[in-house]
Amino acid sequence: MSTQILLPRWLIQIETHEVLTGHALVIKQDRIAAILPAADAFARYPDAERVDLPEHALLPGLVNLHTHSAMTLLRGYADDLALMDWLNDHIWPAEGAHVSDEFVFDGTQLAIAEMIRGGTTCANDGYFHHGAVARAALASGFRMMVGCSILEFPTPYAADADQYIRRALDCIDEFTGESLVGFTLAPHAPYSVSDATFGRIITLADELGLGIHCHIHETQDEIDDSLRQHGVRPLERLARLGLLDSPLIAAHMVHTTDAEIALLAQRGVHVAHNPASNLKLASGFARITDQLAAGINVGIGTDGAASNNKLDLFAELRLSALLAKGQSGNPTALPAWQALEMATINGAKALGWDDRIGSLEVGKQADVIAVDLSALGTQPAYDPVSHLVYAVDRNQVSHVWIAGVPQLVAGELTRFKQAQLVANARRWQARIAPR
Amino acid sequence: MSTQILLPRWLIQIETHEVLTGHALVIKQDRIAAILPAADAFARYPDAERVDLPEHALLPGLVNLHTHSAMTLLRGYADDLALMDWLNDHIWPAEGAHVSDEFVFDGTQLAIAEMIRGGTTCANDGYFHHGAVARAALASGFRMMVGCSILEFPTPYAADADQYIRRALDCIDEFTGESLVGFTLAPHAPYSVSDATFGRIITLADELGLGIHCHIHETQDEIDDSLRQHGVRPLERLARLGLLDSPLIAAHMVHTTDAEIALLAQRGVHVAHNPASNLKLASGFARITDQLAAGINVGIGTDGAASNNKLDLFAELRLSALLAKGQSGNPTALPAWQALEMATINGAKALGWDDRIGSLEVGKQADVIAVDLSALGTQPAYDPVSHLVYAVDRNQVSHVWIAGVPQLVAGELTRFKQAQLVANARRWQARIAPR
Repeated sequence: MSTQILLPRWLIQIETHEVLTGHALVIKQDRIAAILPAADAFARYPDAERVDLPEHALLPGLVNLHTHSAMTLLRGYADDLALMDWLNDHIWPAEGAHVSDEFVFDGTQLAIAEMIRGGTTCANDGYFHHGAVARAALASGFRMMVGCSILEFPTPYAADADQYIRRALDCIDEFTGESLVGFTLAPHAPYSVSDATFGRIITLADELGLGIHCHIHETQDEIDDSLRQHGVRPLERLARLGLLDSPLIAAHMVHTTDAEIALLAQRGVHVAHNPASNLKLASGFARITDQLAAGINVGIGTDGAASNNKLDLFAELRLSALLAKGQSGNPTALPAWQALEMATINGAKALGWDDRIGSLEVGKQADVIAVDLSALGTQPAYDPVSHLVYAVDRNQVSHVWIAGVPQLVAGELTRFKQAQLVANARRWQARIAPR
Repeated sequence: MSTQILLPRWLIQIETHEVLTGHALVIKQDRIAAILPAADAFARYPDAERVDLPEHALLPGLVNLHTHSAMTLLRGYADDLALMDWLNDHIWPAEGAHVSDEFVFDGTQLAIAEMIRGGTTCANDGYFHHGAVARAALASGFRMMVGCSILEFPTPYAADADQYIRRALDCIDEFTGESLVGFTLAPHAPYSVSDATFGRIITLADELGLGIHCHIHETQDEIDDSLRQHGVRPLERLARLGLLDSPLIAAHMVHTTDAEIALLAQRGVHVAHNPASNLKLASGFARITDQLAAGINVGIGTDGAASNNKLDLFAELRLSALLAKGQSGNPTALPAWQALEMATINGAKALGWDDRIGSLEVGKQADVIAVDLSALGTQPAYDPVSHLVYAVDRNQVSHVWIAGVPQLVAGELTRFKQAQLVANARRWQARIAPR
């Protein structure tokens, strides 16, 4: 790969809250080699390819901190239903009948293409058929933390917790050394995983240096069930089991007491906030402003496309900032810079990857996106950071690089054929819901 | 204009909640002439122009029930501020210094172009320089209800309520007979308009057959102030003054007691719900599910671009459906069809224009939009109605007709030059916020 000099109108520095103008970002191989005044870049890299971005903001690629990528194939399959009707009568039967390596590969590819098109360069996934997830990411050059789901009850993928764990370990072995792909152990939720299985997961995570990714406190029902069954709320049970001693991403964390917020902060638990999914499934309003104020590292996720129904991190970013204001009654809550941090560096920190992604800094991986602000919906442009949070549409993302590789150039995906993705989606639709 | 046969994959019938396939919609002049099986359309209109929409849903143009169009020129000018700081230190000084016929014409044109591009074909505006608003709408063929703002305090547009009213009446006279443009009297809010002025407005509205458009119960502060000053909540004061006897669009209506909801329903007051603005300014959560259940006609607005910051009715539609679920704790609240009604026929009813727009019915004005669902973010497509509410991006709107005139063809605006709009926006930005 040649050296590339990117010449944006605005260069967004997440870590310092600065907007640089007249500056260039230089990509060499897979890394950010320099950030410097444009004239200096031309002098220092006279033979580099230049990418003019005269109307664009350049920022780190967004990090989707909680999703189930392959569920794109069930997007809009069932909506406007109570959670257990939705799961029992629609989602689980469809998954039981159709989820396979092929389903997961195709669905994950569709998700990756949608995410790249919208400026997301990294996702924290959780699903079955982990090898297919990893292969889909590697086939397209996408950065993916693959969550290996573990639960007690059988699916076509595994019969019991033991088999889910064995499949996870085999998969992690198979992809050792791949720089774009990492793994977490992903116990599904407190209500679907036993104490004994949590114990094994904690031991394995410690031994193998893996993070853990788990749905926690998504609904009030989950908490009520735990109180009945275990006599304590789920978080307390997990804390007693030792789960909070491992690097832990708690997805949703909608229902949190003050004491729980203090505990999460003290133990360094990362939270993945999923505002659209929490609303759509009527799970509740997460206390994000309080969680952030307590020092918890909170990132943003889309959840799966079956409960959102889009993998649009710009939409989630905006919704996070709006909801925080409405919920707190304070219009200064979650201002634009802090929202942008959540969707970039906070996600990277939660994955343990903030040494390599999440901000535009020399030496980091070149996961970079350009957003064209000349669209009617972002004119005039007094403040590019305000527009990135409150006004842009994801289709204004014009260019995407992951590890230095151009993935989107002038709005066109380089590694996917859209017609092929659409044909695949239709083939699955015809199987899942024949007319 | 020639006869046009539109051939969508899905034809969305708001009034019956039906999705027709294999059907054509025929536009003759400014009206919908027929909806019939495609083969019959070819036989009956052999010489008509055919518009193939093989991946598209066809639906009525969206109605934006509350906006201040010209405020596009202040988009992102000030954010993340407390309401009174935002108004006193930023918005009002900028308006005082810059708002003029030219500002309003340019800002309204930018808003109209943004709205058409995103599938909105009609807006209920409220601002100053009403003539400039009407001229901007007529110059571009957009359907606009022009709200003539009336308040007690002076702006560069008028010195007092008397002068605002005189200017409104002059403007209404000037544009009599224009089919695309109508007028409301728009007393700004209970806190900025006196009892005497409300009385005059009610009399004039009755005499002239005009509707009234007013911000009501937007914030708790407004209610507290009214209790101190008038001894009653604003709605009760307005009811006593007789305002609820006129056709009334109450914008925001965030704070409503059970008794107030019953009163609004009984008196046929229309509500314009503005979910993004209500969150961004931390005004609160409107009780939309309860309002709809009581039989109130609720439409959806974007509010102005300074407090949103986009005029994207698809985003508001989605946010309305999501918020209703989160707020009520019921994932079946505000299902997709009902949300679509709010953004179409309910808006038309509120404007008194449901005889001419708001649904695809023979004899109505041909205000029609086509949305391409072949994008990655709307694949697969089990249910086009779910996708229209939960999954589409506004840039998937490919075609727009207003009164039969093609306004957007294959994603390109026909009546605007984007470069000119952007140049205008930049000129205003340079004046308002010189570097």
